Amino acid sequence: MQANGERLWAELMAMAELGATENGGSERLALTERDKAARDLFAAWCLELKLDVHVDEIGSMFARRAGRNPDLPPIMVGSHLDTQPRGGRFDGVYGVLAAIEALRTIEEAGHGLQHPVEIVNWTNEEGSRFAPATMGSGVFAGAWSLSEALSRTDRNGISVADALKAIDYVGTLKAKKRPIHAYLEAHIEQGPVLEARGIPIGAVTGARGQIWYRLTITGTEAHAGAAAMDLRRDALAAAAEVILAVETLAKGEHPDAVGTVGSISATPNSPNVVPGRVDLTVEFRAFEKDTLLRLDQGLKAWLKGTREQRGVAIDLEVSMRSDPVAFDAKLVAAIEQSAADAGHEVMRMPSGAGHDACRIAAIAPAAMIFIPCVGGISHNEAEDITVDWAEAGASVLAGAILAADATGF
Amino acid sequence: MQANGERLWAELMAMAELGATENGGSERLALTERDKAARDLFAAWCLELKLDVHVDEIGSMFARRAGRNPDLPPIMVGSHLDTQPRGGRFDGVYGVLAAIEALRTIEEAGHGLQHPVEIVNWTNEEGSRFAPATMGSGVFAGAWSLSEALSRTDRNGISVADALKAIDYVGTLKAKKRPIHAYLEAHIEQGPVLEARGIPIGAVTGARGQIWYRLTITGTEAHAGAAAMDLRRDALAAAAEVILAVETLAKGEHPDAVGTVGSISATPNSPNVVPGRVDLTVEFRAFEKDTLLRLDQGLKAWLKGTREQRGVAIDLEVSMRSDPVAFDAKLVAAIEQSAADAGHEVMRMPSGAGHDACRIAAIAPAAMIFIPCVGGISHNEAEDITVDWAEAGASVLAGAILAADATGF
Repeated sequence: MQANGERLWAELMAMAELGATENGGSERLALTERDKAARDLFAAWCLELKLDVHVDEIGSMFARRAGRNPDLPPIMVGSHLDTQPRGGRFDGVYGVLAAIEALRTIEEAGHGLQHPVEIVNWTNEEGSRFAPATMGSGVFAGAWSLSEALSRTDRNGISVADALKAIDYVGTLKAKKRPIHAYLEAHIEQGPVLEARGIPIGAVTGARGQIWYRLTITGTEAHAGAAAMDLRRDALAAAAEVILAVETLAKGEHPDAVGTVGSISATPNSPNVVPGRVDLTVEFRAFEKDTLLRLDQGLKAWLKGTREQRGVAIDLEVSMRSDPVAFDAKLVAAIEQSAADAGHEVMRMPSGAGHDACRIAAIAPAAMIFIPCVGGISHNEAEDITVDWAEAGASVLAGAILAADATGF
Repeated sequence: MQANGERLWAELMAMAELGATENGGSERLALTERDKAARDLFAAWCLELKLDVHVDEIGSMFARRAGRNPDLPPIMVGSHLDTQPRGGRFDGVYGVLAAIEALRTIEEAGHGLQHPVEIVNWTNEEGSRFAPATMGSGVFAGAWSLSEALSRTDRNGISVADALKAIDYVGTLKAKKRPIHAYLEAHIEQGPVLEARGIPIGAVTGARGQIWYRLTITGTEAHAGAAAMDLRRDALAAAAEVILAVETLAKGEHPDAVGTVGSISATPNSPNVVPGRVDLTVEFRAFEKDTLLRLDQGLKAWLKGTREQRGVAIDLEVSMRSDPVAFDAKLVAAIEQSAADAGHEVMRMPSGAGHDACRIAAIAPAAMIFIPCVGGISHNEAEDITVDWAEAGASVLAGAILAADATGF
């Protein structure tokens, strides 16, 4: 089976227009008006394909094609349409639109399926506006409760519940786990490996576990000219120690782990005031669960030292935790076979990033297909792929759906 | 002469209402509607005292009382009415309102003066909304040009020129130096020394010189899960090194110097994106000019190392520079004598903070009177003084004005 790369590309570019940024990216934070526009466009395309579109209580969208056997659970295929602030055009979006293209390819090839197929657009995968990330798939898989997710607020104090209402995407479908025959998600690699090796398809074997923290460091606000150095309790200097500690701890677990402080705000944030408060996020990711434990302990030990030496208070809250994920061996093999059938070179590889598939892997057989991205750049307006890669991924996804339909798990 | 502390306190509290914050402070950033309200109230009080209020091209206000000899240059007395974000009720404000109280005290005591007296409210001393600090007095003293100051913009891109127009405080008086017989400024200490020693009056001998920088660190934005630690160019980790370098350098020059990073912003500031850009401010202050030179060189050496080791670009711009200041010896002695005459204990001391008086010291005989503040806390909503301290400062200021009137410089 051969997907139509040009047709898929046209839809990717149409979607990228919604929230298009100056430098060629897209910005569609979860549950904004732009996200609504993307959802509406996705629903319109699904209706053209005669799919039934259902929305669940956290706003995740499921576009269903009936199978020959109405009693079987669905094969679920998809990803997410929300983006990072000043994000790229392909992260998430590619997986949703490749699912549409794969289904069209299957239909055009005249293949019937025993199982229903549902194309899914998970709510708030990115976690940029509302923490945690993978919110929709996490609620679906039972990683946290619906009510907890609905109560999360953005920087302006707007809750997920209110944001869902504002864009009219509160659905009636229960946001909870139901039987899934197999889950497949196509995605850009977000790393440099596939492009560097000239291999268009990655059969993803698993993903890093994650632990996310929110820290508040409280020192004493003081006049920058009058407060002597030895009397200060500078919250930003303490934060600087934490930032370098996170880097040092993660480097000590290289290549298994990564660690990042991505977000910081100082109060009052005036050039001539010693900051009295700093809020920041920390996250660690690793393939091995033990590594995550060591990083967690290492961070806490470091914070203890900073507290004691600097006399600051540090409040630490875990905002998200997910174990490392191993994808389903049969599905990974099916992806490899599908790539071989379509004449594409393929390699097994882990995912550094977390994905909705990592949530669903907890409740159903799941796997992912990676395609390369230029320079490994992602979460960035410069994120880019080629039409050939886009087509290869959709073709392999179509074959993997057929294989999953014929597989017992 | 004895100032009326209760009367002064009532005016301080009335002024504090304009932009009063939840926790007992005031927030009146320069050239905002709240600053306009404070200016209008000050002007109204000056008109009650039959003073002529003039405004110059940068918005600084001069309330003039004629002297017996119209050919003599004025004794200028005052400070500023703008505050830090979530600032205190007394920083700057005390100096303007103490000047009013001192003038009333002189009038009530029946003292005539040879020289005119001008009570001044300098525009934008704090520099929080528009850099640099001491903007109005700096333009007056020729530290930078009027056009340069008018073109400075806040975070929303609003220029000083536009903000002045918006609050209708573009004056016709030339914003440039003219003869001043003597300049006196009363201020809270913003440090703990006077309160700790139980001494109500400081005769300020000089102030730290300052150098302020704006830094932009540019690395590479990357996916926090997929970008390996050894391939990152993390702008925030580089910024953390700079923050700790500033602290280490300043501590190495203790007690002469202080160094502060007060303001930071990371881009895109998302928990799961390695920051590609960080903007921050750095400032050093020292009593010795050589110390400032060493700190400047030390910072540049450190930035060179960070650039080379991390592969980031660092753009460094000096946004403000002022030499250490020595106040006029005759005026310092006059303040000591005035305190002794009023029965208040007094000590000579330097100022850690910069003040409008430091600008005017470059063009006229100048000195400052410090009163204690509770716990040395300033640039903070918790900033506090007592009625007794307020009264003592105004009494000493009144005596110092009389002494200055009789002194040849």
